[in-house]
Order: sequence, then C-alpha cells, then structure tokens
Amino acid sequence: MYRLIEQDGCAKSGEFETVHGTIQTPVFMNVGTVAAIKGAVSTCDLNSIGTQVQLSNTYHLHLRPGDEVIKKLGGLHKFMVWDKPILTDSGGFQVFSLAKLRKIREEGVYFNSHINGRKIFMGPEESMQIQSNLGSTIAMAFDECPPHPTDRAYIQNSVDRTTRWLLRCKNELTRLNDLEDTINKRQMLFAINQGGTYADIRIEHAKTISDLDMDGYAIGGLAVGESHEEMYHILEETVPHLPHNKPVYLMGVGTPANILEAVDRGVDFFDCVYPSRNGRHGHAYTRHGKMNLLNAKYELDDRPIEEGCECPACQKYSRAYIRHLLKAKEMLGMRFLVLHNLYFYNHMMDEIREAIRNKRYKEYKNQMLDNFRHKED
Amino acid sequence: MYRLIEQDGCAKSGEFETVHGTIQTPVFMNVGTVAAIKGAVSTCDLNSIGTQVQLSNTYHLHLRPGDEVIKKLGGLHKFMVWDKPILTDSGGFQVFSLAKLRKIREEGVYFNSHINGRKIFMGPEESMQIQSNLGSTIAMAFDECPPHPTDRAYIQNSVDRTTRWLLRCKNELTRLNDLEDTINKRQMLFAINQGGTYADIRIEHAKTISDLDMDGYAIGGLAVGESHEEMYHILEETVPHLPHNKPVYLMGVGTPANILEAVDRGVDFFDCVYPSRNGRHGHAYTRHGKMNLLNAKYELDDRPIEEGCECPACQKYSRAYIRHLLKAKEMLGMRFLVLHNLYFYNHMMDEIREAIRNKRYKEYKNQMLDNFRHKED
Repeated sequence: MYRLIEQDGCAKSGEFETVHGTIQTPVFMNVGTVAAIKGAVSTCDLNSIGTQVQLSNTYHLHLRPGDEVIKKLGGLHKFMVWDKPILTDSGGFQVFSLAKLRKIREEGVYFNSHINGRKIFMGPEESMQIQSNLGSTIAMAFDECPPHPTDRAYIQNSVDRTTRWLLRCKNELTRLNDLEDTINKRQMLFAINQGGTYADIRIEHAKTISDLDMDGYAIGGLAVGESHEEMYHILEETVPHLPHNKPVYLMGVGTPANILEAVDRGVDFFDCVYPSRNGRHGHAYTRHGKMNLLNAKYELDDRPIEEGCECPACQKYSRAYIRHLLKAKEMLGMRFLVLHNLYFYNHMMDEIREAIRNKRYKEYKNQMLDNFRHKED
Repeated sequence: MYRLIEQDGCAKSGEFETVHGTIQTPVFMNVGTVAAIKGAVSTCDLNSIGTQVQLSNTYHLHLRPGDEVIKKLGGLHKFMVWDKPILTDSGGFQVFSLAKLRKIREEGVYFNSHINGRKIFMGPEESMQIQSNLGSTIAMAFDECPPHPTDRAYIQNSVDRTTRWLLRCKNELTRLNDLEDTINKRQMLFAINQGGTYADIRIEHAKTISDLDMDGYAIGGLAVGESHEEMYHILEETVPHLPHNKPVYLMGVGTPANILEAVDRGVDFFDCVYPSRNGRHGHAYTRHGKMNLLNAKYELDDRPIEEGCECPACQKYSRAYIRHLLKAKEMLGMRFLVLHNLYFYNHMMDEIREAIRNKRYKEYKNQMLDNFRHKED
C-alpha cells in the first residue's frame, strides 16, 4: 500500500506499507546478492547504517544454497536475520547476464549454471516459486532484459513476451500466496517495464501493465550501456504513464547523480552495487565527489573519510589507517569503505525525502550536483 | 608491574599493570599483524569479544606503512584506535621466517623485504627504534629464532649472541624512553629465552637473562616443529628458572589444549594466529573440539556455531547461514568465524583465570581436555 506524502515537481515522497514494515520513499535498497552484503557487512551492521530494504538475488540463491534449503530454514528473513523488508529480483537479469548457453522460449529460459554448468529451466512460474520459497517481501516479475543496443523488432517481441510472462507470474504468485505452507502469504509483486530506448514501446508497455493493478512498477533494462541522457529521457517519457498511486522502481541505478536526477523524474526505489563494489576497490563516495583512498596523499591524513559523516568508519578511523589497510589488502579496509558508502547512499536518501517533504527538492539536487563537481581534493 | 594473585600448582594468575591499563593473566593476545586482525575485525569489535591485548608485528609495520608514518600519526594506539595494551614483537621471528637472502652478523641481520625485495638491515637498536616509533605498550627484545631441528653448536652460539643483543636492546630502549618526542616513554621490554630443545642451554640462558630485571620474560623458538611433549618438557625445565614475580610469555602458542597445558606449567601470556587463520578457513573452535563449518551436515542446521556462546556470531546467526557464506566465499562468513574463535580463546582465558583463582585449575583443565576429545558431532 503506497501513500503519497508530498510531491515537489515530479519528485515524490511517500510511504509503502509491507508485511515487514513501512518503507519511506525515495529509498535506496542495499544489495546483498547471495543473502549478504559484500564486504563483510552483516545484517546487524545494516541497522547502524540506516538500511531500510535489503535486496537479494533469486538466481544466485536458487543455485546456492538453493531456495528449498532457505525455505526449510524458515525463509530469507530468518536465514540472514533481517526483519525489515527484502526485495528479491526475478532472476531474469542474471539469467541474461551471467548464465551460459541460454535459449529463450515462450515457456521460459533454458540455461546453464555459471557455477557448475548444470542445465536449468526458469520461466515465470519457476521464478515465482523460488521467490515464494525465499519468502521475500516484494517479488519481481520474470522478464527479459535485452542488452543495449537491440533492434526494434526484437525489443517489441521481447516486451510482448514479457507482458505474457507477467500475467503468468501474477497468476502463479496468487496461487502460491494461498498455499498452506507459504512463508509470506502476503508477498507482493512488482511488474517490470521494458522497451529499451524506444520511448513509444516503453509507453505502450507502461499503459498495458498499469491496467494490471500490480503492487509496484519497475523500470528495467536501463543502465545497460545507454547514455545518462537517454536514461533520463526514457524516464521522462515513461514514468507519467505508470500509476501515480504506486511506487516506481528504477532497477540497478546508479551513481548519486543518477539517483538525484531519477528522483526528480518520479522514481521511488533504487538499487545498485556501486557503493559496495567501489568500496571494495578503495573508492569512497562523499558529498565532494568520489575519493580514491589508495591515493598517496592520504598516507598521513588523520581525518575521517568525510568530515561530519556519522558512519561507523568515519566515527573512529582515519583516511591514513584505511589507506594502509587497503594497501595491505586487509579485508577490514574494504569493510570500512562499504559501510561508509552504504551509509552515504542511505543518508542521501534521508536528505532527499526531507527536501521533497519540505518542497525544496530542486535546490537540494542542484546543491548536491554542484558539490560533486567541486571536489575537495 | 606484575602482581601474583593466586597460584594453583604451577599455574598462576596475576595482574600486570601497564601505562595502557591492567592486564589480567593468563591472557591470550589477539594477533593483528599489520595493525588489523585479519577477517575484517576492527578494534571496535575487539571490545565485544573480550580482547585485553592486541599484538602487532614490527617487521610488517616497518615495511608498510612504515613506523615513521605511524609515529607521525601519533603511534599505533591512535593509528588503529585502540587504547588498551599493545605488544609488538621484535621483528626477529619474521626476519628469520619471511625475509629473503638474509645474513646474520654480530651487528644484526641483513635481509631483503618479502614485499618488494628492498635491502634492509635490522639489529637490536633498529628493532627498538621501530618499536619506540610504534609506541607499543610492551616491546620485545630482538633475538634470533633458529628453526627446528638445529644442531647444538649453532644454538649455543645463537643464544650467546641473543644475550648480547638483549643488552643492546635494553640500553637502546632506555635511551629512547628518555627522548623528548617518544610516544610511550614508559615502554616496557620483555627478554626472550632461546635454546631450541636443549634444556641445559635454555636453563643457562634463563638464569642469565633473569639477572637483568626485565619487565617480563618470553620463551621463544618453540612451536616451530618440535612435538607437543618436547614443548611441555622444555617449559617444565625452563619456567622455574625465570623470575617468579614477572610475567612469562610463550610466543606463538597455540591450540586451546597447548594453552591449557602451558598455563599448568606457569605461563601467563600467549599469542597465536590459529583462531583467526583457522576461522578464515572455515574452522570453529568450540568446547567440543574443532568444527569444519563447510561440512555438508550443517546445510540445514539452524543452531549457532556453539550453543550458549555469547560471541557476536552465535548471538544471531546459524551454522547453515555461515556455511552458505563460506561456500559462496563471502567475507562475512570468515568474519563471523574469526569473531567466534577469538571470543572462544578470550573466554577460555577468563575461565582459566577464574579456575586458578578458585584453586580448581587441574579439574578445569582435565574437563576441557576431555571435552575436546569427545566431539559433539
């Protein structure tokens, strides 16, 4: 249940009620692909960095440890010890980006596991069954996510099939939610809008899926190689055709600047591996742009990564110490940067919500974008 | 300043006052080789697992980031944000085990860095200067640590040189502690007893160094390949010839059973990489012996690693979850096991002290050794 609290231009801020608690939007979901945030970050840590929603990957968890195993252990919430909302993707994106030798058919996708080569079939029903076994708060519909660029004819066919798959997902999840031993009988389902960079296909698809009264609507197939301008353009064209009283989720996006721009075009939900992946490579996000902590100039720098930051790393440890840990390839250095970066993203979302609710979003966005351009060092 | 609180057979429990607080003995020092416990464990975590003393390595920190860098940043305590005692080893053991192309001379050791091949000289004075720059609570004397087995003539010559080096260490540290800009002007110095498995050489050396009124006495050159029985025998022969009113430190030891036996022979201080190294390889220490969490039988096991354990991992997470993390090569799995293992060691030392202070150490030791032999699974 989505409740719009305030709108400032196209930027909106709301509350999304789930069986695992209320999500304040716009929200950045923290990615824990295999039921763990990379960088040795536990679900205890998530509470200290302001995480609202954790996102895990259906494809990865299906392969290992197996969704049946997680179901037997009481579901993903119990498995990873997290009582707030969890969104699971459909597995579609990973099937199309990680799996080998895949064949797409009307019934679904045949592919080989990237871990051990085992042959696997996944269609809309299988994706729903896996996500139901995981017992996530929000399940994502099984879709095809074509690469960029892909020709118009392929995209149109693909989108039509994705629509047919969505209907099958909806029917299957309705059936699963009614079963006796289902872990989360109130599991929600988000549809995914596709259409590449063809605005008219996107719009047509948005209208079609809007009629289905889903719990939320995602925009997939962006941030796959098109320019930022193309992405923003597609958002401007598509978002107005999605239901206003439902959350909009831009999948896999992005940099802090991408998020600020997408919020300004009406997006509520985000997820991205950047904060954890870049953290593991020694990069920190700050309001003065990105820092490379491996840089020699931090050797004797006893300041925190970002002055004024209240993340667990900045509260105690210096740039010099973290740089040393990274140089020595100590996991602890990566952990500190991942904690900082996730805190930075989560905290920026707090500020975004506050700015929208106070009707000063443009000002906030421009100030942040300006800061990013004027690096401290 | 060491104060003996209770003695039970040869086992003793005392308090050792330092400028960074009082250490309750027997104590297990947690090894943070390069100023960080491996396994993404921070100094904040150390407080939650009962760590009294952190141990860092002079050789590693001299090479990277450099002891001069750490001095400029205010010393090791400030660098890694830890206000309790830190012991630094002398660098001798690493020079003899890690460095390449080394030449031992009366003045010290010439060797090449294992990181970049750079030529380095380290003698007693250099070791003291580095440790003074680090500002640790307790510095260790620079010694030679010959491999096992080594012939008697070599060991005798080596021990004699180690004694001459000890005198130079003592003079140099006295000088350094008096300098204006020294970080810890009350840095302590422990001597190191050597002599391989030749009890008479060990005893003679113990008597010689006992006369020097050091702050504490270590037994080095054990746990280098000799049998446990030889090690226990050397302890029985040597410890009685070290001062009764000073702490005795058995370097680099060992398994929980080794520690229980060594305490029973009068040892106060221990350090070992086992809990962190074995944790990173999926092994957990428990009072029912060692567990391999990668074992398939834990796939659906929702119990904590050790029931009743109050470590941060056992408080919340299951064997099944930790096994999954290890299989997926997620750092978080290693972190949980390192936290558990260090907690296990630190907590066992709490129990050891309590048992000695209650004059029931034999009973406690036998019960623990018996538990280790009767594995839970």
